[in-house]
Amino acid sequence: MRRPKSDDELVFLPLGGAGEIGMNLNAYGYGPPDARQWIIVDIGVTFGREDATPGVELILPDPGYLEGEQENILGIVLTHAHEDHIGALAWLWPRLKAPVYATPFTAALVREKLREQNLLEKVPLTVLPLKGKLDLGPFDIEYITLTHSIPEPNGLAIRTPLGLVWHTGDWKIDPDPLIGDLTDEAALRAMADEGVLAMVCDSTNVFVEGVSGSEADVREKLTKVIAGCTGRVAVTAFASNVARVETALLAARACGRTPVLVGRSMHRIYAAAKGVGLLAEAPTPLAEEDVGAMEPSKVLYLCTGSQGEPRAALSRIARGEHRHVKLTNGDTVVFSSRVIPGNEAAIHALYNMFIDRGVDLITADDHPVHVSGHPARDELRQMYSWARPRIAVPVHGEQRHIREHVKLARELQVPEAIGPNNGDLVRLAPGPAAIIDEVPSGRLFVDGNVVIETEDEAFRDRRRLAAEGAVHVALAVSAKNAIMAGPNVTVRGLAMADEEELDIALNDLERTAQAAFSKLSHGERDDDEAVEAALVRAVRKAAERLWRKRPLVDVSVLRL
Amino acid sequence: MRRPKSDDELVFLPLGGAGEIGMNLNAYGYGPPDARQWIIVDIGVTFGREDATPGVELILPDPGYLEGEQENILGIVLTHAHEDHIGALAWLWPRLKAPVYATPFTAALVREKLREQNLLEKVPLTVLPLKGKLDLGPFDIEYITLTHSIPEPNGLAIRTPLGLVWHTGDWKIDPDPLIGDLTDEAALRAMADEGVLAMVCDSTNVFVEGVSGSEADVREKLTKVIAGCTGRVAVTAFASNVARVETALLAARACGRTPVLVGRSMHRIYAAAKGVGLLAEAPTPLAEEDVGAMEPSKVLYLCTGSQGEPRAALSRIARGEHRHVKLTNGDTVVFSSRVIPGNEAAIHALYNMFIDRGVDLITADDHPVHVSGHPARDELRQMYSWARPRIAVPVHGEQRHIREHVKLARELQVPEAIGPNNGDLVRLAPGPAAIIDEVPSGRLFVDGNVVIETEDEAFRDRRRLAAEGAVHVALAVSAKNAIMAGPNVTVRGLAMADEEELDIALNDLERTAQAAFSKLSHGERDDDEAVEAALVRAVRKAAERLWRKRPLVDVSVLRL
Repeated sequence: MRRPKSDDELVFLPLGGAGEIGMNLNAYGYGPPDARQWIIVDIGVTFGREDATPGVELILPDPGYLEGEQENILGIVLTHAHEDHIGALAWLWPRLKAPVYATPFTAALVREKLREQNLLEKVPLTVLPLKGKLDLGPFDIEYITLTHSIPEPNGLAIRTPLGLVWHTGDWKIDPDPLIGDLTDEAALRAMADEGVLAMVCDSTNVFVEGVSGSEADVREKLTKVIAGCTGRVAVTAFASNVARVETALLAARACGRTPVLVGRSMHRIYAAAKGVGLLAEAPTPLAEEDVGAMEPSKVLYLCTGSQGEPRAALSRIARGEHRHVKLTNGDTVVFSSRVIPGNEAAIHALYNMFIDRGVDLITADDHPVHVSGHPARDELRQMYSWARPRIAVPVHGEQRHIREHVKLARELQVPEAIGPNNGDLVRLAPGPAAIIDEVPSGRLFVDGNVVIETEDEAFRDRRRLAAEGAVHVALAVSAKNAIMAGPNVTVRGLAMADEEELDIALNDLERTAQAAFSKLSHGERDDDEAVEAALVRAVRKAAERLWRKRPLVDVSVLRL
Repeated sequence: MRRPKSDDELVFLPLGGAGEIGMNLNAYGYGPPDARQWIIVDIGVTFGREDATPGVELILPDPGYLEGEQENILGIVLTHAHEDHIGALAWLWPRLKAPVYATPFTAALVREKLREQNLLEKVPLTVLPLKGKLDLGPFDIEYITLTHSIPEPNGLAIRTPLGLVWHTGDWKIDPDPLIGDLTDEAALRAMADEGVLAMVCDSTNVFVEGVSGSEADVREKLTKVIAGCTGRVAVTAFASNVARVETALLAARACGRTPVLVGRSMHRIYAAAKGVGLLAEAPTPLAEEDVGAMEPSKVLYLCTGSQGEPRAALSRIARGEHRHVKLTNGDTVVFSSRVIPGNEAAIHALYNMFIDRGVDLITADDHPVHVSGHPARDELRQMYSWARPRIAVPVHGEQRHIREHVKLARELQVPEAIGPNNGDLVRLAPGPAAIIDEVPSGRLFVDGNVVIETEDEAFRDRRRLAAEGAVHVALAVSAKNAIMAGPNVTVRGLAMADEEELDIALNDLERTAQAAFSKLSHGERDDDEAVEAALVRAVRKAAERLWRKRPLVDVSVLRL
């Protein structure tokens, strides 16, 4: 490895994940301030919600700052295949255009995303083996095997001339992960002996005492719970937790049930897992459409939708709208999942719908049918004692998690701890760690087929339309500036007690528009913008009086 | 009391609250099935959310079934002044037109609502004393004093010729409620000796083991916590919890701080409490605008907005947008409140904003600075052992709470337990309790100044506008059915990567509309509806191709 030059710096720049759980985008820069080279670690999404971000299903970190550094980005290195780590790649790659590196299972899922966006031929994707190494300019990167809730979770030991950064990615310490190797403790200890400058670490469960528990425990408990069920059983879990999927498939066999996959992502992940040689011992599940009539006691559905997502399989089943799966009195739904904060209301609504159908519920509240994939406090303590970093840099958390993690690191006597926000440029070396700059950061929305800023007028208009409704005024004006037809008023989203009152209101608005036009001078009537502005003002005021709302008002002046 | 006739029945009908926590509307009917007389107990709202119900701040129970029974409604009897028990009165009273009964504090807040809706002169409102009695036809009603998180919480002993119903309203067993009397155990025991046919009971905290705790404990802990603060302190709590407000005022005095009320409902409730003689011993708070510059260590703000409501005082302070209150490094916010399910995301966002400002947070997660106003399981057990009802009827809960409460009642050997949904007509006597009918029930939205059905087209359109946007097409057509101007297309809520692409898209839509018009026969061109339908179809299809969205499309045909 080359020796550092006198003005070299090693910096860390989170553009996503330092302020939320989800939507990770981490960058490391090396070199003098005016000529840094960069690697990007992970590039994930967070999910929009029909209510909070209507029309927007995916939210991306804004890579704006790195777009300006495009030629200096040496690579995009992916730790694992969760959507909050890889989901933005296909959307943002055209702005970054760097080669991509991933292990086999991650690469399989990435390829699928690239194919959907017609990018498969364009993006250079290198598949690395587990424990593989990768040299990108000043960054010598080593994949270190960890455990998590998806196959092939990796941390990255990033060696630079100014020191080694241990980037954990998402992890836990699962003593029996069922799929994949144990945490590579030997590699961690060796790395620590070499000296760890900084550890950039998962903060998700920093408020949880103790340890997260093992997939093996879930296997035992879930099998027992299912054995006690008499009617149909539906297990919901994240599809990407292949160990959990395997558990459900094996539990089905143990209980004399035929497993059935329900939901697109179950099929997608099942195929990806099979593609890398996983699930070889598990019974082959049926697809939902192939099931037909089966004894209730002989079937086990494995469903997506544990978070109450309205269009996912489980919500459709709860509403009685699923084409192939019906659950009723005496059947059981097992939530082998946690409640992700923010989804409480949707999940409770799901519970209530099932209860209304007489369906029994088994959740992680009462039964040990789920473990988290992120480290609880004892696991964090263990990792700090393995890695012994000079600097703790908590990420993958809201501000409250990151602050708590900084506190924990200080209790553990880590010499320095720094809790960044998205956009904070953190100097890791030389000298004490410090936030030396703040670069623009934020979110982007995938809106239909275009990526927009969150402040895009179109999105702001939709928020306003949702609450206030819309009014449109159309009128045809002669060359002599007389109204020849109209004003015609149409409204959307504005309610009246009945049709008659609505007609009265529309007439009122039409008279208002007419009167506003009449008040204009001849010169103003010649000017579309002046006509529009006057009519918008008058009609909006009338609408406020009629509805106590402030609708968006548009005017079409048709010139004859 | 008169003797029951052979065909008399006593029925219970929840139209709100049996399926949600909030929005209570309970009715009791007595008489033969074709000539029942009714009383309504409570008539509350639930709150809309900007994201889930845009433009709708209040949600009401649909009293549709009772509207048909208007002449047979003997009274609307209110148990206490929480919004989910009284908030719908002013909106729904014109549909029910029955006299209203309440104790003094509740009546004070009701009067204010009636005044706002110009109903004060119309609604007959009778103020009853605590422990008062009220005879309404076959219903002899006795107010029994309980404890809760608001002054004057009452249960109702409703005596009828077919038996006594114990309607708890909202309650807990607070051994030291600070304001108001203790739970009137003597009255409960006397009632039980008389024989309780049915107990209609609060289910909110049926999943919580143990007891809810006392306001007196909170007073001690909150005072201690505030004594430990050095900078500015803001305490957020529900304004209606007057004991808690008093605690904050007294804690301010004990800690040498001047209390300052922030937020409209703090002032409103403070005035109502003073009006009935409460808060006499507490220091008089300042209003936020009268504070001016004060030593940080000398001020205690008492704020609304503990649930992260975006327009409440606390959210504005967190965003740095409050005119009078600024919090910064070294200041502390004390959440003397719980996280109401569904508000997690909003409240966590609030935490994160404060943390970002360096403000310390003290919440009920770490410090005993809040107790619930609803009974935990040990209190439920105590109430069942006091009342010894023949029938348990859990209400004030989602289906999951109600089902759990039914289970608890059965464990306690209550002979019958029945968990109703909104709209279930429950026969309490004679014979075994049973759901004998299902009447229409549902929700209404207060939308601007009109009360609408949740399925109102205007609201559905707004949801669609929020996700999909709007397109408007205007064209002027001559008597000979030629287009003389337009088609002009305007869009709202539809984004393109840049202005140029948007212009291209608008031109595309205009050509599409033009082409669709050209394809019509002369006869069709004469018919506005045919023109509109054809253009809507064509333009929507083009918009789907351009944006991958399905906007609402409207067409204005101006006839010259």
